[in-house]
Amino acid sequence: MRIKALSEVLPGTPVTNRDLAERFGLHERWLERITGNRTRYLCDPDSPDGVPKLTGELATDAGRQAMDSAAVGPGDLDFLILATASPDHLMPSTANLVADRLGLNDLPVFQLMSGCAGALQGLYTARALLASGAERGLVIGADTCRRLMPSSDEAVRELGPAGMVNFAMFGDGAGAAVVEAGGGGPALTTEHMILRTVGKGREPAQLVRWYGAGGAPAVPGPKGEPVPEPMAEEDYKAIEANVPGLAAEVLTELAASVGWPVAEVEHVLTPQLNGVMTERIREHMGVRPEQAVSCVADTGNNGNALPFIQLNRALRRIADAPDGHGGRVLLTAIESSKWVVSGMALRWDGGEDR
Amino acid sequence: MRIKALSEVLPGTPVTNRDLAERFGLHERWLERITGNRTRYLCDPDSPDGVPKLTGELATDAGRQAMDSAAVGPGDLDFLILATASPDHLMPSTANLVADRLGLNDLPVFQLMSGCAGALQGLYTARALLASGAERGLVIGADTCRRLMPSSDEAVRELGPAGMVNFAMFGDGAGAAVVEAGGGGPALTTEHMILRTVGKGREPAQLVRWYGAGGAPAVPGPKGEPVPEPMAEEDYKAIEANVPGLAAEVLTELAASVGWPVAEVEHVLTPQLNGVMTERIREHMGVRPEQAVSCVADTGNNGNALPFIQLNRALRRIADAPDGHGGRVLLTAIESSKWVVSGMALRWDGGEDR
Repeated sequence: MRIKALSEVLPGTPVTNRDLAERFGLHERWLERITGNRTRYLCDPDSPDGVPKLTGELATDAGRQAMDSAAVGPGDLDFLILATASPDHLMPSTANLVADRLGLNDLPVFQLMSGCAGALQGLYTARALLASGAERGLVIGADTCRRLMPSSDEAVRELGPAGMVNFAMFGDGAGAAVVEAGGGGPALTTEHMILRTVGKGREPAQLVRWYGAGGAPAVPGPKGEPVPEPMAEEDYKAIEANVPGLAAEVLTELAASVGWPVAEVEHVLTPQLNGVMTERIREHMGVRPEQAVSCVADTGNNGNALPFIQLNRALRRIADAPDGHGGRVLLTAIESSKWVVSGMALRWDGGEDR
Repeated sequence: MRIKALSEVLPGTPVTNRDLAERFGLHERWLERITGNRTRYLCDPDSPDGVPKLTGELATDAGRQAMDSAAVGPGDLDFLILATASPDHLMPSTANLVADRLGLNDLPVFQLMSGCAGALQGLYTARALLASGAERGLVIGADTCRRLMPSSDEAVRELGPAGMVNFAMFGDGAGAAVVEAGGGGPALTTEHMILRTVGKGREPAQLVRWYGAGGAPAVPGPKGEPVPEPMAEEDYKAIEANVPGLAAEVLTELAASVGWPVAEVEHVLTPQLNGVMTERIREHMGVRPEQAVSCVADTGNNGNALPFIQLNRALRRIADAPDGHGGRVLLTAIESSKWVVSGMALRWDGGEDR
């Protein structure tokens, strides 16, 4: 599989820690220290000025940019895959809405429901479709994590400090890749992929509920009073205890499978949780700061978009490097919701020989 | 691709039109006339007696039964795919929860978000994975459509007659298939597949929303009073106007691609909307009653489960027929949410030559 073009879309203007601190009555420096994130980007359902509202809009923009960058039109694509945990609706699939907006028709369209490993699931599925006859496809990862939080500022404030950490570490965004089986010209070529659930017997460390028109049922609050069931729950202890080790294992396995010494790989894409955790994971993986391609401190954790954004930034680094040709890329993504490990080894092919 | 075993799971005991009529103050004969459905099966979140509550439980049961029927264990499977429009949560994917319950680990797991075409999307993806190296996998379709309706009986009653028709035509259920690339023994072998969105420029004819903890926003009611936004909306006129023609087209294309005269095909699986509409579609497709394999009048419309249940029943018919070997199957499924056409031609292979 050759990744022909990549894109990233971040809605609106960056929301700083100062912005959040003022809006929710918190300390800017505390947010910075706890999350390690400097900014995030948020969709705005009430925006009058064209800021995207929903996952489908982000995904459409990312898909269009990747298609433009690859200089392909709707008729050049044989499939569309969208990975997201925050679909616009339960039905129709957001992928089918995006297809219409991109002018895609008469092709198979898939929507994968997943968290942090969804981008890799999408690319893994794409590789299978390309191996079984398709020539070219579009894979998009997009999430509006903002929609997984309480909708009003007042309700966010009621989350307290722990909830605010969550609010401050997540963000909205999308990324996309045009992939093809053959063809000439420069591309990132896939050398190896890893994708497997390792959730047997492990409790989920992330849970995000959805509700019908009636909203959340009441559950007992701290003083026994009825409070709405929380939409999202995380077990950060389990995440901190397990993600670094799993990421290191994936990196070792990837490097061994392609025979690249990790220390020599130019671009290592680490799991993106938040600025603080991602930095800890990088250290645990034995990856040097200059090798790491990380974006979460600036983009916020925007779920299925992250690996595409990291790949996009790795591609920019390769383009900017005097010796960019031959650039090696190792991508790792760990989903803690029910424990999926995934990774990808890619090599830059400048396309000169063709 | 060879379908080695199939299963179907319907929760609890059949709910009759009389049951619904008594519960919601309606006329049994009216429900029968409007929907053409006799029974449906419903999950019960409050059931003390082991009736499944959620999509994940239905899917687990269907997966286990298909695995048992194919005599395969967790270690024999190379992937798991679940298609659903009613996941237990937004995260983790229900597919990963099901994997754990089935003892599946260290394999790729995918959850496709889709409506009526999801089963075919799952089988299409499975075929690609089998073509690119996997040997055997499990594909499940499951839905709890009950969860897409208001949760209390009182709120259902407030839907009025139009809403009650919806309530009476849907149901909950799951089905599964063990699929493999090669191998011996009897199986349904795939001769051709069709899967493509045709939604360009067409409005969705089905919409199901999801909400956060706050539930649905208020929208103006018939007299201007605020009422909760409806969770689901359908455009039955568009469905009635388009599905029969699209189904006939898919059937014609399928039959032509494998060179089988439609009139000679033993088992034709028609789109399953409700008893009345499915019967109209069958007539429009020119399919004789004895050719048609239909279940919706008894199972209710349980979304992603339906094609698996129809395939399971076709397989039973083949097993029961004195001349079952050589049985030809044409499956059609049309998703009206944002217009996806799908179909599959299969042939029974008794496995004697192997």
